[in-house]
Amino acid sequence: SYRKDVSDPSSPVSLIFSVKEGVGTLANALKIFKNRGINLTYIESRAARGGQGGYEFVVTCQIDNGRVDDVVGELTSDLGSKVLVMSRNKDQKNATPWFPRRIEDLDQFANQILSYGAELDSDHPGFTDAIYRARRKEFADIAFNYKHGQPIPRVTYTEEELKTWGTMFNKLTELFPTHACREFNRVFPLLQEHCGYRSDNIPQLEDISQFLQKTTGFRLRPVAGLLSSRDFLAGLAFRVFHSTQYIRHPSKPLYTPEPDVCHELIGHVPLFCDPAFAQFSQEIGLVSLGAPDDWIEKLATCYWFTIEFGLCRQDGKLKAYGAGLLSSYGELEYCMSDKPKVLEFDPQKTAVQKYPITDYQPIYFATESFESAKSKMQAICEVIPRPFTVRYNPYTQSVEILDSKEKLLRLANQMQGDFNVLKDAIGKVVNGTQTK
Amino acid sequence: SYRKDVSDPSSPVSLIFSVKEGVGTLANALKIFKNRGINLTYIESRAARGGQGGYEFVVTCQIDNGRVDDVVGELTSDLGSKVLVMSRNKDQKNATPWFPRRIEDLDQFANQILSYGAELDSDHPGFTDAIYRARRKEFADIAFNYKHGQPIPRVTYTEEELKTWGTMFNKLTELFPTHACREFNRVFPLLQEHCGYRSDNIPQLEDISQFLQKTTGFRLRPVAGLLSSRDFLAGLAFRVFHSTQYIRHPSKPLYTPEPDVCHELIGHVPLFCDPAFAQFSQEIGLVSLGAPDDWIEKLATCYWFTIEFGLCRQDGKLKAYGAGLLSSYGELEYCMSDKPKVLEFDPQKTAVQKYPITDYQPIYFATESFESAKSKMQAICEVIPRPFTVRYNPYTQSVEILDSKEKLLRLANQMQGDFNVLKDAIGKVVNGTQTK
Amino acid sequence: SYRKDVSDPSSPVSLIFSVKEGVGTLANALKIFKNRGINLTYIESRAARGGQGGYEFVVTCQIDNGRVDDVVGELTSDLGSKVLVMSRNKDQKNATPWFPRRIEDLDQFANQILSYGAELDSDHPGFTDAIYRARRKEFADIAFNYKHGQPIPRVTYTEEELKTWGTMFNKLTELFPTHACREFNRVFPLLQEHCGYRSDNIPQLEDISQFLQKTTGFRLRPVAGLLSSRDFLAGLAFRVFHSTQYIRHPSKPLYTPEPDVCHELIGHVPLFCDPAFAQFSQEIGLVSLGAPDDWIEKLATCYWFTIEFGLCRQDGKLKAYGAGLLSSYGELEYCMSDKPKVLEFDPQKTAVQKYPITDYQPIYFATESFESAKSKMQAICEVIPRPFTVRYNPYTQSVEILDSKEKLLRLANQMQGDFNVLKDAIGKVVNGTQTK
Amino acid sequence: SYRKDVSDPSSPVSLIFSVKEGVGTLANALKIFKNRGINLTYIESRAARGGQGGYEFVVTCQIDNGRVDDVVGELTSDLGSKVLVMSRNKDQKNATPWFPRRIEDLDQFANQILSYGAELDSDHPGFTDAIYRARRKEFADIAFNYKHGQPIPRVTYTEEELKTWGTMFNKLTELFPTHACREFNRVFPLLQEHCGYRSDNIPQLEDISQFLQKTTGFRLRPVAGLLSSRDFLAGLAFRVFHSTQYIRHPSKPLYTPEPDVCHELIGHVPLFCDPAFAQFSQEIGLVSLGAPDDWIEKLATCYWFTIEFGLCRQDGKLKAYGAGLLSSYGELEYCMSDKPKVLEFDPQKTAVQKYPITDYQPIYFATESFESAKSKMQAICEVIPRPFTVRYNPYTQSVEILDSKEKLLRLANQMQGDFNVLKDAIGKVVNGTQTK
Repeated sequence: SYRKDVSDPSSPVSLIFSVKEGVGTLANALKIFKNRGINLTYIESRAARGGQGGYEFVVTCQIDNGRVDDVVGELTSDLGSKVLVMSRNKDQKNATPWFPRRIEDLDQFANQILSYGAELDSDHPGFTDAIYRARRKEFADIAFNYKHGQPIPRVTYTEEELKTWGTMFNKLTELFPTHACREFNRVFPLLQEHCGYRSDNIPQLEDISQFLQKTTGFRLRPVAGLLSSRDFLAGLAFRVFHSTQYIRHPSKPLYTPEPDVCHELIGHVPLFCDPAFAQFSQEIGLVSLGAPDDWIEKLATCYWFTIEFGLCRQDGKLKAYGAGLLSSYGELEYCMSDKPKVLEFDPQKTAVQKYPITDYQPIYFATESFESAKSKMQAICEVIPRPFTVRYNPYTQSVEILDSKEKLLRLANQMQGDFNVLKDAIGKVVNGTQTK
Repeated sequence: SYRKDVSDPSSPVSLIFSVKEGVGTLANALKIFKNRGINLTYIESRAARGGQGGYEFVVTCQIDNGRVDDVVGELTSDLGSKVLVMSRNKDQKNATPWFPRRIEDLDQFANQILSYGAELDSDHPGFTDAIYRARRKEFADIAFNYKHGQPIPRVTYTEEELKTWGTMFNKLTELFPTHACREFNRVFPLLQEHCGYRSDNIPQLEDISQFLQKTTGFRLRPVAGLLSSRDFLAGLAFRVFHSTQYIRHPSKPLYTPEPDVCHELIGHVPLFCDPAFAQFSQEIGLVSLGAPDDWIEKLATCYWFTIEFGLCRQDGKLKAYGAGLLSSYGELEYCMSDKPKVLEFDPQKTAVQKYPITDYQPIYFATESFESAKSKMQAICEVIPRPFTVRYNPYTQSVEILDSKEKLLRLANQMQGDFNVLKDAIGKVVNGTQTK
Repeated sequence: SYRKDVSDPSSPVSLIFSVKEGVGTLANALKIFKNRGINLTYIESRAARGGQGGYEFVVTCQIDNGRVDDVVGELTSDLGSKVLVMSRNKDQKNATPWFPRRIEDLDQFANQILSYGAELDSDHPGFTDAIYRARRKEFADIAFNYKHGQPIPRVTYTEEELKTWGTMFNKLTELFPTHACREFNRVFPLLQEHCGYRSDNIPQLEDISQFLQKTTGFRLRPVAGLLSSRDFLAGLAFRVFHSTQYIRHPSKPLYTPEPDVCHELIGHVPLFCDPAFAQFSQEIGLVSLGAPDDWIEKLATCYWFTIEFGLCRQDGKLKAYGAGLLSSYGELEYCMSDKPKVLEFDPQKTAVQKYPITDYQPIYFATESFESAKSKMQAICEVIPRPFTVRYNPYTQSVEILDSKEKLLRLANQMQGDFNVLKDAIGKVVNGTQTK
Repeated sequence: SYRKDVSDPSSPVSLIFSVKEGVGTLANALKIFKNRGINLTYIESRAARGGQGGYEFVVTCQIDNGRVDDVVGELTSDLGSKVLVMSRNKDQKNATPWFPRRIEDLDQFANQILSYGAELDSDHPGFTDAIYRARRKEFADIAFNYKHGQPIPRVTYTEEELKTWGTMFNKLTELFPTHACREFNRVFPLLQEHCGYRSDNIPQLEDISQFLQKTTGFRLRPVAGLLSSRDFLAGLAFRVFHSTQYIRHPSKPLYTPEPDVCHELIGHVPLFCDPAFAQFSQEIGLVSLGAPDDWIEKLATCYWFTIEFGLCRQDGKLKAYGAGLLSSYGELEYCMSDKPKVLEFDPQKTAVQKYPITDYQPIYFATESFESAKSKMQAICEVIPRPFTVRYNPYTQSVEILDSKEKLLRLANQMQGDFNVLKDAIGKVVNGTQTK
C-alpha cells in the first residue's frame, strides 16, 4: 500500500550509456568520472547486443545538477554515446524520473520512505498506546534492514494480535463464497492448505512469499513505512508487493486507517496467486516506470480502483476482487448494494476519477476479466509521454529498455519461439478435423 | 557434462491429475491413495485455470507397476479426470519418462548419478593418487548435499590446483581473439571484471552463478558425478547448468578425460552469458523433456555438436563457440585447420552423426547464428513423438504442459502483450518517415 | 446505405458439409437430394484441407422447414458429417442466418431489396415529379441487373443534375480544410486528379471503384433500392460498398432524405481510400456475418455512429470522418459547435445508443484513430453469440469459417510468414544501434 | 515456364519518391521532368501513410544513364525526398533491377520476351511443319495482345491436337494414384468436375484461371514466348502463372522440348489449387523482386527443383509434386526408382545445384511439406542483398515496400487483427478443458 509523492533533492543520478568494444574500454570509460573527482556509488557493465558489440554501463553518483550536464556532454563527445540520465531530483533538467532496473534496486526504497512505520497520526487508535508503538517500531526495523533475496524474518504474534486477526478472519470468510470473485475462492483453500491461513494463526510473510513465487512469481517484501506512489508501483513491475507485517490496534479489530497484515494477507495475497491478475498488476507497474508525475498520480488512481477497490462481472453478477473490499466486512457488503455507482473500467477515465480515502467509495469500476483489464492498461502506454518502451525480463529479473534494433529483433525472435510453441500446442490439443 | 542413460526400476511414479472444485475436494482426492496404503512422498496442489475452475494435483509415490494401473483406473472413474503418469521406470507401461516440472525437482538428480565423482577409471591420470582421490570426494560431497536455492559452497583451491588452472588459462587466452566467436570475446572481459577470471585465481561457482543469473538467468549447480543424458539435458530446460567444481590431475594440465572446472568455467560459462545462446541451450533442454529414449540420444548428440563442439560463421570466417573447443588449446587450433570436415548444422542430420569421445572430432557442424540454431532446434519438436507441448514459465521457474484451451489462451494473451510492446517500441525506435 | 431488417420466409437454405475422399464421392454425395426430389440451385465443391483430405460442399436449395431436418439427419448419418445450415428464413430452427461466402454471392442481394429505388415516399421532394421518378427507375434497373465483375454502367448526367452536384460540391469543399479529418484531405486531391472530382462533373462509379480497388481493395456496387442492414453490412466484409447512383431532387440541392450519389461520392468514397479506415469498415462487416438479429441492429448502430456520423481527434481537435457529416454543410458545421454531446467511441455502449434519423444528431462518438476503432470493433466478437470464427481471404475473395485444426494451423502459418516479413523489415528500416 | 536472362539497354527507368503535402504539390512535383523535356510514360500518385502525410509518386520515363543521376539529384535537393531508381538497364548505376509493383505491370512483360513463341529451334519436332508454325503464331499473337483483366481468349483445338492431349492424359492418369502427391489427387477430380479435364477435351485457360482464382487466388496468363527468369518469377509474386496455350507437335505426343498446354494444365495447375503450395510458389516470386542477377539464377534453380521437379514425403513414401514429373510418364516412373539421388530440399544448397535441361534429372530434392518449404524459402531473404523488404497486398494486388515506420506499424496492426481472430478461433474450436 502507498500514498502521495514527494520530491527528493538529494537523490543520486544514474547515467546509462554505451561504449564501443576495444582494449581497456572497461577501465577507461570510468576515467571521465574519476578525473572530475566524482565518486561512483554503483557501477554496472555488461555486453551490449548486436553486430557492433560494445558494452552498456549504468553508473550512479551523487552530483549536483550543473555538473550532470558537463559529464553528459563529455560522455557524448568522447564516447559518441547517447546518455540516459535518471534522477529522483525533480529539478534535474532533461532527466527521466529514476526507476529501478534490477530487482535488487528495490532495496533503495527503504531510504525513500515518506513516513516511518512507527510514527502514528494523532487520530490513530494506537496513538497513545506506548506498547503498540514499540511493537510497530519492531516491525519497521525488520523491514528497514531487509535486503532482496533474504528470507523475511518470522514474527511471533501475541495472543492479542492473534485475537484481532481471528475476529476479522471469521467475519470475512462468511462473505467470501457469495461476495468474492471466482479466482479468490479457488485460491483460498490452497492458502489454508499451504500457508497456514487459519483463524488462530497469522500466516508468515515468508511462507506466503514462497508460495506466491511458485504460483505466479509474485513475492512479498516487508515495508518500513509509507512509500511514494512511484516507488510502490515500480515494485509491481517486478512482481514485488510491498507488504506491512504489523496488525491494527486491538481496540478496533474491524477498522484500520492504514494497511496492515490483515488487509495484505486476506485482501491482496489470494489474487496475486492468479496468473491473469498477476499480469495485470505487473502491467500497472511497468507502465509507471519513468512516467511523468501527473501520470504517476493517474496510475495510482487506476491502482486504487482495481487492485484496491475493483469489481468484476462473473456469470452476470458483480463480485469483488479489490483488496480494500475483501478485507472490509462493511464495504464488502455495501459495494454490492444498490447504493454505490458502478462504471465500466476504462483506464483513461478511471485515471481521473476523484475518490475519498476514509469513506466507503461512492463509485466503483467493474471489469469483464483480468485479461481485458490488462490489455486496456497496456493500451494506455500510447498516450503516456515516455520516450522509451520497457519490458520485464523474468530470467534476469530486470527491466529492459527497448531502444535499439537489436533489442527489437531479440524480442521478435522470442515471440517467434512462442509462436512455434502455440502452433505445436494447437496441433496437439485440438482434436478431430471438423467441429462446429 | 553428461553421458549415457540407464533405467531405474526402483523409481517413484508421479501422477498428474485434475479434480473439480467443491467442499473437501482437497482432502478427499488423496483418500484413494490412503485407502490403498500408498505413501505419498510429494503432494502439490494448485488452482487450475479456466471457466470450470478446479485444481491440479501432482503426487509422487513408490508403488510397483501393477498397482499404478489400479490407481489410475480409480482416479479416472471416481474423479472423471485424465491422469498423466510419469516414471523413471522403463517397464512402466503407458508412462511418460519422468521429467522435472519445478526447478527444485532438480534436487532429485543427486540420487540418480551414474557414477560418483570420486570413482576414477583405471586409466585416469589420478587413479593411483590417493590425495587427488580424497580431494575429489570432498567436491563430490559438496555437490551431493547441495539443494536448489542454497549458495554454492566456496572452495579454497590449493597452490597446485591454481597452477594447473593458470597454465591452461594462459595458453587459451592467447587463442581467443582469433579463434573464439564474437560473443565469447565480448563477454570475457566482463568475467575478468566481475567474477575473478585471472590466471592466478580459480573463480568460485557461486560468483559465476550470481553473475549468470543477472545476465541471462542461467545458473550453475554443482554435480556429484555423472548424470544421465536425460537428466543433464533436463537441467538446461530450467537454464541450469550442472557443473563440476574439481580440477583435472596436475600431472597433465592440458588434458582431462572428463569435464572439470577449467572446461566448465572457460569453455561453457562465457557463452551462457549471451542471451541468444542461452535461449538455444534451453531449447535443447525443453525439447528433451519426456522425449522417448532414442530421441534423448539424438538430442544429446545435437548437444555434443553444438554446445560442446560447435562452430559458427562470423564475417565470413569460422569461429569456435563449443566448450570442448574453447577449453582445449590443441583442438581449438585443429578445428580451424583444413583437416576436419565442416557441415551445416541441421538438427535432424546432426542428431544421427557418430562421433569419437576421446579424439579430436573428424566432423564439426557450423551454424549461422544462435538464433537460427534455436529455430532449427525448435522445429524438431514436430517430429518427436511426444503427446504434449511444454513451455517454461520463468516467473514460477516451472515447466507448463499446454494441454487445455485455457492454457493456449493464456499463452496467446501473453503473446498479444508482447506484440503490443513490440509495436510501441517500433513506434519509438524507428525515426523519420522514409528510409531506404 | 441501408435501413431496417425483414424476415424472408421463402428464402432458400444453404447446407455446408464435408465428405470423405473416395471414388465417386463427388457424384454420390448429391444423391440424397436427388432421391428426395430436391432441386439444388447451387452446388460448390472443393478440397478440404488437412491430413484426412476429403471435400467440402455448399449446396443451396428451396425446401420447407420440416424437410431440412430430414436431409440434415440423412447427411449426418450417411456421411458422418456435421452440417451447417444457413437460411434467411427466421423460422428455420437451428439455422445460422444466411450470409454470403463468396463475393459473387452479393449478386443475390438484388432479390432481397426492401423497397425498389424508384418508389418514393409521399414527403419525398420528387414524389410528384414524374420525370424524376422515371430517371430513378433507370438507375434502379442498372443496379438490379448488375452482376459482380461487370463494369458499372456509365451514366450521362443531365445539366440539371450536374448543377445540383456543383452546388453541393462547392459549398462543401469550403469546409473540408478545417472540418474534415487529415485522411480525407490527403485523399481528396487524388480523387480530383484521378477520378474526375470537379464541381462541373459527377464522377462515374466505375472510375471510382477502379481507383478504390488499387488503393485499398474496396469497390463500389450499384444498389437498386433499400438493403436490409444484414445485407448491407455483409457487403463491407468483402470490402464492397453498396452505392446509389442517382442524385437528389433538384428542388432541394442541399437536402436529401436518403443517400444519393453526392452523399456516397463526397461523404463515403474518400475515406475508403484510407487503409486503416478500410480495415475498420470491413471489420464491422465481418463481425456481422451470421450474427443474430439483435446484434445486427447493434452493429448497424455502430455503423451509424462511425462510418455515417463519426468524429475523430487529431492534434487535439475534433474532425469529421463520417459520410453523413462530410456530405452535409449544415451538420458539418453543427457537429463541431458546442451544441451536440461528444462521447468516446466504445462499441458496446455505442451499439445501444438511440438516434434520430431525420435530425442533426444530438450525440456523436469520437475515436482516437481508425486503428483503435478497429481493435475495439474486433473485441466485440467475444460477446456476440456466434459459434464460429470467420476470416476474409482476399486472394479468393471469400469468407472462411475457421472450424478445424487445419484451418487454425493454416492461419498460424500465414501469421508466421508475416512475422518473418516484419522481422526482416525491422532489420532493414531501423538504422543505428542505439537510439533514445 | 522460363529460361535465361538478358540485359535491356533501352529500358525505361522508374523513379519512386515522396513529396510533402501542400497546395499544388501534385502538379509541381512533375515540373522537374517537364523542365528537362523528359517525357513521362507513366505517372502514379497516391497518399503516403503516417503523421506527416504527403504523397508517393512512381514515374516512368525513357532517359539515358547520365541524366538519371541529374534528375535524382534535383528531386533529392528540391523535395528532400529519397529516390528509389528501378531500371532494367544493367548499366544503370545505383539502380535496383526493375520489378512490377502492380498486377497490371505484368502487361509490360510482353515486350520483354526473349524469343517469340512461333520461332522454333532446328531440332524442334515441328521445325519443318509450316501448318504447326502458323498455328503457333496464332497462339503467340493471342498472348502478345493480352492485357491483365481481360478474359483469356478461348481456343478451338483441332482433332489432331485433341488426340495428342488424349494420349498423354490417358497415360498419365494411370500413374497419378500411386505417384502423385496427396494434394494433387485430391484436386484432380475437382478439375474434372469444374474445368472440363477429360481425355477428349483440352480445358480452356480462362475456365481454369477462374477456378484457380476462387480456390487460391492464383490465375493464368497467356505468354507469347520465352520470358526471362526475372520476369517469370516476378509473376509468381502476384500469384500469376505465365502459361502456354499451344500444344506439342503431334509427331511426338509424349515428348516436348518446351512447355506446352499439356505440361501446364496437367503438371502445374492442380497444385496451384492447394493453399500451401500457392503460398510457397508466391514466396519464390516475392523473394526474387529486385534481387541481383546471381540470386535470380539461384531462385530459378530453386524453382526448377521444386515447382518443376519437386518430390515430397507423405506417409513415409516419396511422391511427386513437380510439374515436370507429373506431365512426363517416363520421368514420373523414373524419379521413384532407385536410380536418381534424392536430397533434402534446402534453398541455400538447392540454389547452387547444377542440372541438365534435356535429360531426366540425376538429383531430386524432397520436402516434408509445402509449409516447411515456404518457411525455408522465406528464410533465404536474410542472405539476399536487397535493401528493402517487400510484401504483397492481395487487396490492391500490389507489392508494398516496407520502408517506413508507418508501414511497419500498419503490418503490425494487421497481424494483431489476425492474432485476435486466431484467439477467438482457439476459444471456439478447442473443446473441453483437459486433453491429453
